Amino acid sequence: MKTDTLRVGFIGAGNRGTSLLTNMFSVENVVVTAICDPNPEAVQANVNRCNEKYGDVCTGYSDYNHLLDSGKVDAVVIASTWLTHVRIACDAMKRGIYVGMEVGPAGSIDECRRLVETHEETGTHLFLLENCCWGQNELFILNLVRKGILGELVHLAGAYQHDCREILLREYDNMDKPYCERIYHKIRNMEGYPTHELVPLGKFIGINSRNRFLTLSAASSKSVGFQKLYKEQRGETFPDRINQGDVVSTLIRCANGETISLTYDTALPRPYSRGLRVQGSNGIWMEDNRSIYIEGRSPKDKWEPDAEYMTEFEHPLWTKYRESEIQGGHGGMDYLMLCAFADFASRNARPPIDAYDAATYISIACLVEDSLSMGGALVTVPDFTDGKWVKKRNYETDNLYDINI
Amino acid sequence: MKTDTLRVGFIGAGNRGTSLLTNMFSVENVVVTAICDPNPEAVQANVNRCNEKYGDVCTGYSDYNHLLDSGKVDAVVIASTWLTHVRIACDAMKRGIYVGMEVGPAGSIDECRRLVETHEETGTHLFLLENCCWGQNELFILNLVRKGILGELVHLAGAYQHDCREILLREYDNMDKPYCERIYHKIRNMEGYPTHELVPLGKFIGINSRNRFLTLSAASSKSVGFQKLYKEQRGETFPDRINQGDVVSTLIRCANGETISLTYDTALPRPYSRGLRVQGSNGIWMEDNRSIYIEGRSPKDKWEPDAEYMTEFEHPLWTKYRESEIQGGHGGMDYLMLCAFADFASRNARPPIDAYDAATYISIACLVEDSLSMGGALVTVPDFTDGKWVKKRNYETDNLYDINI
Repeated sequence: MKTDTLRVGFIGAGNRGTSLLTNMFSVENVVVTAICDPNPEAVQANVNRCNEKYGDVCTGYSDYNHLLDSGKVDAVVIASTWLTHVRIACDAMKRGIYVGMEVGPAGSIDECRRLVETHEETGTHLFLLENCCWGQNELFILNLVRKGILGELVHLAGAYQHDCREILLREYDNMDKPYCERIYHKIRNMEGYPTHELVPLGKFIGINSRNRFLTLSAASSKSVGFQKLYKEQRGETFPDRINQGDVVSTLIRCANGETISLTYDTALPRPYSRGLRVQGSNGIWMEDNRSIYIEGRSPKDKWEPDAEYMTEFEHPLWTKYRESEIQGGHGGMDYLMLCAFADFASRNARPPIDAYDAATYISIACLVEDSLSMGGALVTVPDFTDGKWVKKRNYETDNLYDINI
Repeated sequence: MKTDTLRVGFIGAGNRGTSLLTNMFSVENVVVTAICDPNPEAVQANVNRCNEKYGDVCTGYSDYNHLLDSGKVDAVVIASTWLTHVRIACDAMKRGIYVGMEVGPAGSIDECRRLVETHEETGTHLFLLENCCWGQNELFILNLVRKGILGELVHLAGAYQHDCREILLREYDNMDKPYCERIYHKIRNMEGYPTHELVPLGKFIGINSRNRFLTLSAASSKSVGFQKLYKEQRGETFPDRINQGDVVSTLIRCANGETISLTYDTALPRPYSRGLRVQGSNGIWMEDNRSIYIEGRSPKDKWEPDAEYMTEFEHPLWTKYRESEIQGGHGGMDYLMLCAFADFASRNARPPIDAYDAATYISIACLVEDSLSMGGALVTVPDFTDGKWVKKRNYETDNLYDINI
């Protein structure tokens, strides 16, 4: 094993942890030395895969504290259940272990504060593993924004629109099991998964780096989608209460005058879409019709298909990925994200989505819940940077893996 | 002149009044007997056209009260400037003259109340001339909704997205002239034109007829679009303040649990779109990608182009229009709306978009202004029906021109 190799532990060997591990196998200068999960079979399976890949280097754990204390890891990837993310991340930071934390809604605003406090007290970095920041569309738009093609950004929209009813139904009878995240859908009403669309959008407008989210207000629709599926598949009326609205819409106001519209839509029949819209003083791009309009370039008042622009303004990172023979998960973005993680972790550098960002973005889930609980009232978004957002953060925007403006 | 012919007066002989008059020429059993406008040349031109069309029956007026007192009209079409709509409409209702009132933002909430009070005191009907209710897309969706193809409606979206910067620039130097509606863009910050998208959406979910708007909250972006155009075209920095945000987003919550997302976007470069999205327990249709997804019919998780559905579920009114040789304005909807207006007015019947509806829909402009003035706070939408919304209204949904559910 080379000394400049990053030793990574994986906490969580479920679907997501296993899928990330597969992608990590393509990342250079990394060795996965530890796997942890409450399920011993899942641990053993992934330990075996690591030992096959890296030689006999990988140890299995059922208790993540033993993994963190083992001295065998420089960094961890946390892909456990949502409710455990922050606790594990803080315990890792306290040991000086560079953290990669998977996305999900925050459990509470307090745990978001704890994430930032622990980062500040320990000086250990946390990298929020929001893969969509390295998606093909998102990198393309990042490049458009950096080159000024869309002008000054004014209004953005994004969504997590994913028909999850079948997953809900499969997990419905096990909602009280510790691993079941779907309990949220039954018990809470919130922006259940804000980061896939919001982190890329926030990065386009420099959130926490000379800009910030000021306030939000939300609206929740009724809940009928899952109940309909339940009745069709089980032949009887759904006997219970679902607190989550089928469509939760949120408006966010930003310090530099931009507005963001978010949509969470996971219990109605529909094709998947992150519904991105990025609009500035020079033009607009929209995901759903795959179209772009750039003043002075597009025919007057006519959408153009975005395909030619995707080629002309391809992000150099995507060009590099496309020209490699690597097949990364979720269309490549999991691989690129893990490359970024390994790159920043191996240098112990401030990550492109850091602890302040993580707290900010995952807190939106609970802030929307607060707004909805008051019928849609305005709530303020905490400034987790304690005012430091007024200065440009020391991100590395000349790093190919960086996604900051 | 036949006695069953509806005698119509036109108040307003500007662009819109003149265009509506042209469309009215194709409507049967109507004669236009009066034209009124402060501009005598515009009056004379339209009087001449009417006399040519109908024989020597049409009189010109500069004062609308003289037109209303003439005894020559059974109904009026009000296509004057926004700020005068309600006053003229109330004066007409007081004379027992059936009112067709063009759309626009309300001047205040009080004038919306006055519209309803005057209707109730006089028993005279008011028909809000929202042409988009008779648009091809909107009639198609109306038909889909009536047939239950989309299931129970849950979330709707719509927009007035129209790059009006050139109009603004043309009118900028004349903003204090009485006819100039664009003064709003400079002076107010609101949902500047809510009816084109919101009336059709409201009709799909039975607003004011067993449903109502409960609350709304809004967000306004910064204002940069017009200023950029000004600088490009006039070579100097825009010297003034624009109060209207470039993109105003609004969330509306409805009594039956539906949510509506509105977007007002008139000062940035972009193609025109009303951005309709209609989503229910069975599927979703979206205007911007011209796509539909119906569970059990569409391939799993895949959008279908809406073209085949547009044919299969064409509204019978549209079929009739298409098979006629009439070329109505705005793609046919102006003509169909005026047919509806003439049909209901000639029978003195409750119109499909009545005084309660008019007050409700145009009030949204000012309610959004209220919300924005408080940073996006929640505001309640007045119930202009005084609680009568809990009963199904006596609309005529078997009338081909009716657009109620």
